[in-house]
Amino acid sequence: MEAKIDFIASGGVTSPRGFHAGAGCVGVKEGKKDKPDLGILFSEVPCKATALFTTNRIKAAPVVLCQQRLQSGRAAALVVNSGCANTCNGERGLNDAIEMADLAAWDVGLSPEDVLVASTGVIGQVLPVELIRAGIGQIVLSREGGHELARAIMTTDTVPKEIAVAVRVGDRKFTIGGIAKGSGMIHPDLATLLCFLTTDADVDIDFLRLSLREAVDISFNMVSIDGDTSPNDMVLIMANGLAENEVIGQYSDQAGVFQEALDRVCIHLAKCIASDGEGASKLIEVTVGGASGVAEARLAARTVASSPLVKAAVHGSDPNWGRIVAAVGRSGVEVVESKIDLYIGNICLLKAGHQLPFDVEKVVAILDNSEVPITIQLNLGTATATAWGCDLSEEYVTINSQYTT
Amino acid sequence: MEAKIDFIASGGVTSPRGFHAGAGCVGVKEGKKDKPDLGILFSEVPCKATALFTTNRIKAAPVVLCQQRLQSGRAAALVVNSGCANTCNGERGLNDAIEMADLAAWDVGLSPEDVLVASTGVIGQVLPVELIRAGIGQIVLSREGGHELARAIMTTDTVPKEIAVAVRVGDRKFTIGGIAKGSGMIHPDLATLLCFLTTDADVDIDFLRLSLREAVDISFNMVSIDGDTSPNDMVLIMANGLAENEVIGQYSDQAGVFQEALDRVCIHLAKCIASDGEGASKLIEVTVGGASGVAEARLAARTVASSPLVKAAVHGSDPNWGRIVAAVGRSGVEVVESKIDLYIGNICLLKAGHQLPFDVEKVVAILDNSEVPITIQLNLGTATATAWGCDLSEEYVTINSQYTT
Repeated sequence: MEAKIDFIASGGVTSPRGFHAGAGCVGVKEGKKDKPDLGILFSEVPCKATALFTTNRIKAAPVVLCQQRLQSGRAAALVVNSGCANTCNGERGLNDAIEMADLAAWDVGLSPEDVLVASTGVIGQVLPVELIRAGIGQIVLSREGGHELARAIMTTDTVPKEIAVAVRVGDRKFTIGGIAKGSGMIHPDLATLLCFLTTDADVDIDFLRLSLREAVDISFNMVSIDGDTSPNDMVLIMANGLAENEVIGQYSDQAGVFQEALDRVCIHLAKCIASDGEGASKLIEVTVGGASGVAEARLAARTVASSPLVKAAVHGSDPNWGRIVAAVGRSGVEVVESKIDLYIGNICLLKAGHQLPFDVEKVVAILDNSEVPITIQLNLGTATATAWGCDLSEEYVTINSQYTT
Repeated sequence: MEAKIDFIASGGVTSPRGFHAGAGCVGVKEGKKDKPDLGILFSEVPCKATALFTTNRIKAAPVVLCQQRLQSGRAAALVVNSGCANTCNGERGLNDAIEMADLAAWDVGLSPEDVLVASTGVIGQVLPVELIRAGIGQIVLSREGGHELARAIMTTDTVPKEIAVAVRVGDRKFTIGGIAKGSGMIHPDLATLLCFLTTDADVDIDFLRLSLREAVDISFNMVSIDGDTSPNDMVLIMANGLAENEVIGQYSDQAGVFQEALDRVCIHLAKCIASDGEGASKLIEVTVGGASGVAEARLAARTVASSPLVKAAVHGSDPNWGRIVAAVGRSGVEVVESKIDLYIGNICLLKAGHQLPFDVEKVVAILDNSEVPITIQLNLGTATATAWGCDLSEEYVTINSQYTT
């Protein structure tokens, strides 16, 4: 069956049919009255839903609650706040998360078990539930509200991160949308603070789970900002079936195109997170080819993309390529020095382990761009992987040395 | 037998009997004619010698050469340069390292197989052997030359790192000395660029190997500056036996005190490296107690000490303690949130997972010190470990974004 995937201009999490969203400023972000900090995502009909969560042993209260509620494979709404992570708050934190879900459930007319909760912000601060109780009524849900929601989940992010794609298969059409936020405490597994995906496709829950894992492995799990994995990480997908397509299962004709569309959405959002990393001015895209296995290719690519020395060199447009090779060498994957090829942009600096003379000005010009591609060919096998990171700037330090004070 | 370990004022690598050293400026460090960049360490008699090397799969040429030569367990001299790492230079690099050893051997009157080589500096630059050939003659060896050698191995280090201890056992005395350098591309296993240790004790080579591994595991392998492991890492010990003590073997009476003295020397140098990390203004000492095993305690302590978010918060004296708990949580070790105690200095912020109210000004005052102790008690077992790191400053980024340009 012929299939076509198109990006939707100004698309987002409410582009798929039947999804509504909205946000408000209730005061969780202290002293920032113009910054939205509470939002709701709502589906007209119950969704198949699944999520992937942080691997941090310390888990935020909303993560614990969502893990319980998503065992049913079903959800209809999500309430999310920024400004407070509701992490390390013990039993009180869990009770606050439950109350936050209750308040949202009452507001949108659902039963609490169908409402999920997410939080992002400072760890170890008590959630000001009274502000949420007082302010949640101001949120107006609409079919265009996805953009407001994308803003309401931002913390140190400088831009909202949104996307939607339309998928046409034969005479049927479904849509996948998503929003995400970064932009510190970002490291593979799971490499994002929050990402919410929606689709109007009717998708079998088992396939939805498989498909999300596959998409996250090549997108969010390939991003690193600073090597710190957050206790609040969560990538959620909700599928409401309003496209009235044939249910997509693992062996359906449409499984391939659904996966491809979901991959594209996740990779787009993952790249947005990397290029908006705290203090970042450049996106670094590291591709490792010729590895002996996919796991090795991924590990090597992520190690280079997260090396502080590589990141600092890219920041200063310093063609200090030895650091790239050193990072591959310490990644733990099989490396034979005499086989490595190394490219910055399209300029080859190392061929079979031998240094080639290169035009420093041309390499500096590539490093001056807002996207810096680095390619390492190991020449040991056929596996390839790409990872994304950002440069390390003085501003990253400034942001993170004054976060709570 | 009674034993006593004393620090020697202004001690260093030539404090043990029979060791001589010297350094000169031969021009390897381009444009820095007043900075010493070539040095020699020499023992009057051949030494038992062993070293631990980087685990990076990319190995500097001097590392490859030393690994070959140290199979004999014997060495009498070392020649070392700073300003060029002689790494990623293929066969030419190895030949250059061999020639550098030949030149030093001729200079001090030894056979080349007894001479070891080390290099530190920029990766991927060809070693200017002609400058070494022309300049090596200017080096004058002396019994006080250890201080010059400590300066000759510095790159971005701001201070030389030296120590010696005198060990008295009964009526016998032996001495252990050492020098080291950091201060970027520093990460456990092996967490230093270069460290050279000397002793006049007569030590069995098998015990010397065991003992060095044990000392390095609790010192250099517990330091992290930036998570990047260098291809040039090397910790060398040379024991010349001139103290004329009874040979120390694994089961000797003196094995314990030798180990303790070596541990102290290595921990001192490791802490020097951490507090002189690139751009650092503070030493962070992280102790994890109550872990279920030593490996777990070490991993958790190292993860906190190397977390960029913890490091940036310490830099700004920001009491953002949630990041410490998040780092422990992502370290991969067993953690039960409701059992964790957390201290900054002597102030308890978290007791059995419950936040305690704390005086922000007092915590900020502790974070303002040049040494910041952080203690995490997991309350799961009895194992303890300490790791050292430094704060992350804007200057780290500035240094590393302009390293080769």
